[in-house]
Amino acid sequence: MNDKRLPVLDPGVVEGVTGSNYPERFKSAVAGRSKKKLGDALGLKNFGVNLTTLKPGVWSALRHWHTHQDEFIYIVSGKLVLVTGEGEQELTPGMMAGFPAGKADGHHLINRGKTDAVYLEVGDRTAGDEVDYPDDDLAARATPEGRRFTHKDGTPY
Amino acid sequence: MNDKRLPVLDPGVVEGVTGSNYPERFKSAVAGRSKKKLGDALGLKNFGVNLTTLKPGVWSALRHWHTHQDEFIYIVSGKLVLVTGEGEQELTPGMMAGFPAGKADGHHLINRGKTDAVYLEVGDRTAGDEVDYPDDDLAARATPEGRRFTHKDGTPY
Repeated sequence: MNDKRLPVLDPGVVEGVTGSNYPERFKSAVAGRSKKKLGDALGLKNFGVNLTTLKPGVWSALRHWHTHQDEFIYIVSGKLVLVTGEGEQELTPGMMAGFPAGKADGHHLINRGKTDAVYLEVGDRTAGDEVDYPDDDLAARATPEGRRFTHKDGTPY
Repeated sequence: MNDKRLPVLDPGVVEGVTGSNYPERFKSAVAGRSKKKLGDALGLKNFGVNLTTLKPGVWSALRHWHTHQDEFIYIVSGKLVLVTGEGEQELTPGMMAGFPAGKADGHHLINRGKTDAVYLEVGDRTAGDEVDYPDDDLAARATPEGRRFTHKDGTPY
């Protein structure tokens, strides 16, 4: 694909971003996660598209839901377990799921396999978004400076 | 995948939508196009996600660009030719492209193969969007009732 040029993107030329902005105690669950920000590389601004790789044992995120932003995922390779408030489902390549804004059902993906799992994730950038984390003493609240993490009682981290 | 339940979606249960709202003279180019509106089926509102199938010889759309809305595509199966103002590129499964809002370079996909081609397409729903069609006497203009097709000189179809 190296002869390709924009608006076509070879994901091989995009560097993966690791780490997270979670408070320290939550970082380890996603330490083996790498996100290639394809949408940004393509010049898209209204929504983000990431090609994300999870190593074995790694989570996509803490289980969460968004108040204002929709999310969509499409499995590219490997196997992932989707966890929601209603239980677990295994996802294999070609399968997809969506998480509507405001639906108070936290979700995340876990790679319980022995090989890397890769998926596309799409999310819009609607302003005023907040995030709830049903399993953890964590919330992301909208502030004039953007989302900020707090404890569930509102105390900042 | 029949044991799957929302937020996981089996695309097999979503009916494809054929036809277009183009003026009559332009309908034939996309007559062999079928769109499964996955985002709608998943309850997403901020952006659309379609799983679109083009039969051999069929176009994704007239060549066009959007003033306010971003687009992203990901090839699932088959081969497609992406046509932009700068020429053609062949896209195979796993490849992707993006079309930023306001970039005045019309694009479309053509299935020049002998088998169906399938791709995911994502587009947001930013208000006030208009569409330009560089190859055709066609424009889509924003009105209080939504987008309306006109000739290039503004005369309605």
